[in-house]
Amino acid sequence: MIKCVYPGSFDPITCGHLDVIERAAAMFYDVTVAVLVNKNKVPAFTVEQRMDFIRRSTKHLPGVKVDWFSGLLVDYMKSRGANVIIRGLRATADFEYEFQMAAMNARLAKDVETIFLMTDISHSFLRSSMDKELVAHGGKITGLVPPEIEEDVIKYFNR
Amino acid sequence: MIKCVYPGSFDPITCGHLDVIERAAAMFYDVTVAVLVNKNKVPAFTVEQRMDFIRRSTKHLPGVKVDWFSGLLVDYMKSRGANVIIRGLRATADFEYEFQMAAMNARLAKDVETIFLMTDISHSFLRSSMDKELVAHGGKITGLVPPEIEEDVIKYFNR
Amino acid sequence: MIKCVYPGSFDPITCGHLDVIERAAAMFYDVTVAVLVNKNKVPAFTVEQRMDFIRRSTKHLPGVKVDWFSGLLVDYMKSRGANVIIRGLRATADFEYEFQMAAMNARLAKDVETIFLMTDISHSFLRSSMDKELVAHGGKITGLVPPEIEEDVIKYFNR
Amino acid sequence: MIKCVYPGSFDPITCGHLDVIERAAAMFYDVTVAVLVNKNKVPAFTVEQRMDFIRRSTKHLPGVKVDWFSGLLVDYMKSRGANVIIRGLRATADFEYEFQMAAMNARLAKDVETIFLMTDISHSFLRSSMDKELVAHGGKITGLVPPEIEEDVIKYFNR
Amino acid sequence: MIKCVYPGSFDPITCGHLDVIERAAAMFYDVTVAVLVNKNKVPAFTVEQRMDFIRRSTKHLPGVKVDWFSGLLVDYMKSRGANVIIRGLRATADFEYEFQMAAMNARLAKDVETIFLMTDISHSFLRSSMDKELVAHGGKITGLVPPEIEEDVIKYFNR
Amino acid sequence: MIKCVYPGSFDPITCGHLDVIERAAAMFYDVTVAVLVNKNKVPAFTVEQRMDFIRRSTKHLPGVKVDWFSGLLVDYMKSRGANVIIRGLRATADFEYEFQMAAMNARLAKDVETIFLMTDISHSFLRSSMDKELVAHGGKITGLVPPEIEEDVIKYFNR
Repeated sequence: MIKCVYPGSFDPITCGHLDVIERAAAMFYDVTVAVLVNKNKVPAFTVEQRMDFIRRSTKHLPGVKVDWFSGLLVDYMKSRGANVIIRGLRATADFEYEFQMAAMNARLAKDVETIFLMTDISHSFLRSSMDKELVAHGGKITGLVPPEIEEDVIKYFNR
Repeated sequence: MIKCVYPGSFDPITCGHLDVIERAAAMFYDVTVAVLVNKNKVPAFTVEQRMDFIRRSTKHLPGVKVDWFSGLLVDYMKSRGANVIIRGLRATADFEYEFQMAAMNARLAKDVETIFLMTDISHSFLRSSMDKELVAHGGKITGLVPPEIEEDVIKYFNR
Repeated sequence: MIKCVYPGSFDPITCGHLDVIERAAAMFYDVTVAVLVNKNKVPAFTVEQRMDFIRRSTKHLPGVKVDWFSGLLVDYMKSRGANVIIRGLRATADFEYEFQMAAMNARLAKDVETIFLMTDISHSFLRSSMDKELVAHGGKITGLVPPEIEEDVIKYFNR
Repeated sequence: MIKCVYPGSFDPITCGHLDVIERAAAMFYDVTVAVLVNKNKVPAFTVEQRMDFIRRSTKHLPGVKVDWFSGLLVDYMKSRGANVIIRGLRATADFEYEFQMAAMNARLAKDVETIFLMTDISHSFLRSSMDKELVAHGGKITGLVPPEIEEDVIKYFNR
Repeated sequence: MIKCVYPGSFDPITCGHLDVIERAAAMFYDVTVAVLVNKNKVPAFTVEQRMDFIRRSTKHLPGVKVDWFSGLLVDYMKSRGANVIIRGLRATADFEYEFQMAAMNARLAKDVETIFLMTDISHSFLRSSMDKELVAHGGKITGLVPPEIEEDVIKYFNR
Repeated sequence: MIKCVYPGSFDPITCGHLDVIERAAAMFYDVTVAVLVNKNKVPAFTVEQRMDFIRRSTKHLPGVKVDWFSGLLVDYMKSRGANVIIRGLRATADFEYEFQMAAMNARLAKDVETIFLMTDISHSFLRSSMDKELVAHGGKITGLVPPEIEEDVIKYFNR
């Protein structure tokens, strides 16, 4: 039985993230989107907001669960009985980093497998940080973040 | 229901290929290793030999099927009712090519998904062509091709 | 006065090539698409066919000229009084090669400049060789080659 | 009519930047070097100093204008009636980032085109941050920054 | 006479670093591991601790010296009469940065040569920063840092 | 005692190759440039010519020996009692391939080490194949091949 975890910061979730979630949900019954809580970084949105954004963006995918974790991913995987890490790949630069992380995780937990899905090419240039910069300067983010959260993301940056 | 196809030339199967097959077989019930017959290239081994090598190397993985195909991969997938392409990733150079192929296949068949597994780091420098060159010059290939076929591969190149 | 040359094999012209031509034509008055005749390669289409395909695909761009050349690009540039080379960039792998060619051309002709345009992201995985393989196996090429030449390209590969 | 903008931090302008400006000025009548003011970063030099450095380094290029902007580049482009973004490319790592930025800008403003010029190979390893580190440790920066500003850059770091 | 310097932060020394040191020591009589003191970064370990860790990890390599430096590497090289910089290469991303640094150092000191050794493939995914994160979350670091310092590294992060 | 071998096709030797040889000869007493004889490729120049070109280009480096080999490099190394392979690195694309070769050679012969030298940046875009194409079309190759062999290379291609 495959139990997948799709880990990330999701600060906020982008259309690229959603694309990966939809692909994973079409293949696997048990998919959890897990928000990483990193004490060393100041996120734009709280964990609760980020989880809420993911829930609203994936409400058409009833099987998808939303959760958060801190610490090592492989420890979180074990605590959930999960065995497959999902990661999206956009471009060469991604790959280098993902390769290092997957090799490290394979070393830490031999029974955990990482599988990579390719982001749809139209999302391949998206980064959460770009979205934030865009909104901060009044740029349109339609098509960059899921429509369900667009208004909230804009509101936040225009506080 | 996921039906996977792991396509390739497998001329011959390497320990890196076998590593990908074992990872796929640990996750999915229905995995077919499919030898691509390319009329424009002269392989070292016939399709029958390559399939035989794969069968002998995967005899510890009872669910894994071995097959061949020619023409477009997505057409073969449809004829089998398969929906997931398995590909191994070794290094950056791989990724660029795999990205193009996956994007093309996504365009040709929207219901077919490509998932990438990372080859174990100790196999990341293996290429079938290197094996052949090695044997041709009397180098040792232990650990490069599965032990079940090592003797046959050496015999072939020493004809 | 800028006189541009967009050199390539164009065997056949793809939607990615056309995208670059349209971008160049929107910026520059004098754009020549120049088919490279390479005696060492056997093309799918003759120079005449390739030029005809380009002409038909660019008939909505009245200023664009179509020509051919053999030998060194910089010699052709000089003979035309052209001073700017146009190249499309798709991905990292392209860049490495293009970097070498541009450095070599800069060395050969100091007054010739190379400018790079980025192919629209939806064309970034196109290669002429992929189109040919697709058609050869009965795959659909709609959206890969310009509609004006689609029928001719299919006819050719189904001979 | 082409109106070019060459955006960047220019903190300070390097010989690599100047090389790109000279190439652009040789091709286009209307070139503006635009200093990005980023409230989230603390630059070594003020906007006024950076603009002054650019003006002194480009005084042999009478057509080149110097300006600054904050916010989104495409908004600045529109306010100037500019339609072409100039970017220099040094190496593979550059390209990945530039590809993302150009795709994002193409999405935000369909009538704005990005063209890439290749930095002369002898400048391909230059980065403003390296210059600053060099000066801070008493290293020679001759040939790294334009001679017109060399003394001021050294003076600043030796305060 | 070759006098080598292997510079780095070594915060702390990893098995990948040690692998490079062992390779260098097998080839060259005079190898100095030189800890870079960077005033702008807050390290996990003091210079003294980092040097002590290196000394204990290299006690089987009697010829290897341990030192520290601040400022420009080439100035330190000159003060030592050293002429060869040793650098380890792990992956493509490394190379890009190393290429820039080596080109800069070649420019600053023509008589200093940089030579690159390839880290053993089993260490190719190691980074000091990963080690620190691992320990911070209770992950096992056996095989990531030399056994001689493992306990001290764990103790530090569990303070 | 270090005995170096710098292997390659050298068809013909370029200024980039010579740059690597000069760097190696400045560091090591025993450097052999070894021409690979590959039965599967048709070179432009015979082994004798290639060795003669190298000898004439390196006559200012009295310690440098010129030799040829076929088969596996590591076997040749053993037969010479050589223990260090020298390779030049130009760009990212090089690195990927060199990484695979070095890992393979490390596997075949544990006591053989590969060290990489960086080609001077002004040669980083040179490839023997480019030289040949240049000469074939009447382009100038001054500065691309060593002056000692320039006339012979041109003569050959103008036969």
